[in-house]
Amino acid sequence: MTSSKEQYIVGVDLGGTNIVAGAMTADGSRHLAMRSIPTNSFVGDEGVADRIVGLVEGVILDSMEQTDCARRDFIGIGVGAPGPLDRERGIVLVAPNLGWKDFPLAKRIQERLNLPTTLDNDANCATFGEWWQGAARGGRNVVGITIGTGIGGGLIINGALYHGSSDMAGEIGHTTIDLNGRHCKCGNYGCLEAYASAPAIATRAREVLVREEGDSAIPAMVEGNFENITARIVYDAAKLGDPIASEIVKDTARYLGAGVANLLNIFNPDIVVLAGGVAEAGDALFVPLRAEVRRRAFSPAVNAMKIVPGSLPGTAGVVGAVASFKQQHLGGV
Amino acid sequence: MTSSKEQYIVGVDLGGTNIVAGAMTADGSRHLAMRSIPTNSFVGDEGVADRIVGLVEGVILDSMEQTDCARRDFIGIGVGAPGPLDRERGIVLVAPNLGWKDFPLAKRIQERLNLPTTLDNDANCATFGEWWQGAARGGRNVVGITIGTGIGGGLIINGALYHGSSDMAGEIGHTTIDLNGRHCKCGNYGCLEAYASAPAIATRAREVLVREEGDSAIPAMVEGNFENITARIVYDAAKLGDPIASEIVKDTARYLGAGVANLLNIFNPDIVVLAGGVAEAGDALFVPLRAEVRRRAFSPAVNAMKIVPGSLPGTAGVVGAVASFKQQHLGGV
Repeated sequence: MTSSKEQYIVGVDLGGTNIVAGAMTADGSRHLAMRSIPTNSFVGDEGVADRIVGLVEGVILDSMEQTDCARRDFIGIGVGAPGPLDRERGIVLVAPNLGWKDFPLAKRIQERLNLPTTLDNDANCATFGEWWQGAARGGRNVVGITIGTGIGGGLIINGALYHGSSDMAGEIGHTTIDLNGRHCKCGNYGCLEAYASAPAIATRAREVLVREEGDSAIPAMVEGNFENITARIVYDAAKLGDPIASEIVKDTARYLGAGVANLLNIFNPDIVVLAGGVAEAGDALFVPLRAEVRRRAFSPAVNAMKIVPGSLPGTAGVVGAVASFKQQHLGGV
Repeated sequence: MTSSKEQYIVGVDLGGTNIVAGAMTADGSRHLAMRSIPTNSFVGDEGVADRIVGLVEGVILDSMEQTDCARRDFIGIGVGAPGPLDRERGIVLVAPNLGWKDFPLAKRIQERLNLPTTLDNDANCATFGEWWQGAARGGRNVVGITIGTGIGGGLIINGALYHGSSDMAGEIGHTTIDLNGRHCKCGNYGCLEAYASAPAIATRAREVLVREEGDSAIPAMVEGNFENITARIVYDAAKLGDPIASEIVKDTARYLGAGVANLLNIFNPDIVVLAGGVAEAGDALFVPLRAEVRRRAFSPAVNAMKIVPGSLPGTAGVVGAVASFKQQHLGGV
């Protein structure tokens, strides 16, 4: 019985809708099998843990078929999950989208698969993935912002993921840009997330269209049912030159610009990477965003950095979970 | 000729009004002579550099009288100066309060005194000083906020001063808390500094008192001349229970609270230290400030930290300049 000398790590990206898992060589040079299944959070915390275990088993078997590796060549599992969490103890403290509270996810997986398992925040992982193998490669100090249902974030400092004093660092979506502004579901007012997340973009579009449809194509795109407006529809309409959609996207750039400018003045990164669906918005968003950031932040901070869309859509979280396992378990990436 | 085996470092805190310099043992255990002179920025950049050189000479001579050290026991000079600056090249890039542009301050001092000289941002130094020997001692990840004419800041990460990718990190005063808000002299709108710096507090008090004096004692305190209102007068009046002053201080706590909450959610520190005149505002400010932060930031981030007033008024900058010399020249504090 032979086995390659290479070592393998499995990364898991646990989301509210889907679980994605993939295997990589520990040096990151090769991606092996990747699989995705629905999260089905209604089965509860233990049930979802079972689903993750089954998914990882499948990925390991697929990988063994694809290459000459043996099961013992797999050295561990990195999991990215919604926070807040306690990395040290491998516990998801609160995950509203999953309905979890104080669930020892890492321990469950580790016991069942008999492999060292680390836990990290999903947005941290997405940022770390983009830094290790994606659009933020080569950055020394990196801010990652993931925009989807919520707005998450991650900070990389001198090439290592920064977690803060209680694993809460990087909650960029919940920074106040308008202290008397919109209520955010976190309880605060005027959070970036309340303006620039995908649902917030859809809400702002609805608010405008209820008052005036003008020449907008959006009502036709949703067959008159404003409930069906999504951020993607707004971005698509803006790309086609739709005037109301263009205004909404410009406003989004303004809000995001204020949030990014804050990070520049506080943290002075060399790369800001925007991941999630928003990365596909293209120039309609990125051009006014860059202009707004330049208007608001100090020039030496603006000149030191670039703002880029993520380049690993769908896989940044898995790649970053592997990187996080390496940082936490092997001491570096 | 004898000399102690101990080594000494001189710290310099260059402000718009005064220059303070002091000598310390390199291990920080003893403070020797400390001197202060007016900056007299009207003499120009070279003239101010001369003044610093003279001041440092005086501090070295004083120290030699106080202890058995010789001139050769002094190993270097750390200078804290208003930013933005280029640490590597020792250049103050722009200092509006001094009227400087691209002035090679570190080189001038180094040439004249023939001692290695490092440069760092003044607010960075104040934060580092509070961490090394003051109220932030023992912190792993520290946010320092210095509130005076402007609002500066510094970040300490894993016990080292963090400078960012172009020495611009920590510009906490210029984070947006109200993106459509007050114009800030940096050119941006709604910066924390535009609400919570000492002049901003005085301005807000003036704005209220022009409309209604109510029962306020402030008009009498300034003999009816509102131009003489300062932040200190507002704090003093609030301590005496003045209703309008109390409202102004509560509003200040709200603005500062939004700014500090942003830093908690982004950076998740274990200590936030507020230095400068505001540190003397006492409970009138700190009690509502802590409440506002708790309302706005995530609980795990709030619970991981404490907010404290600085404990080295007037000397944090000098102590931190010595610490910064150690970090930059000796590799660690």
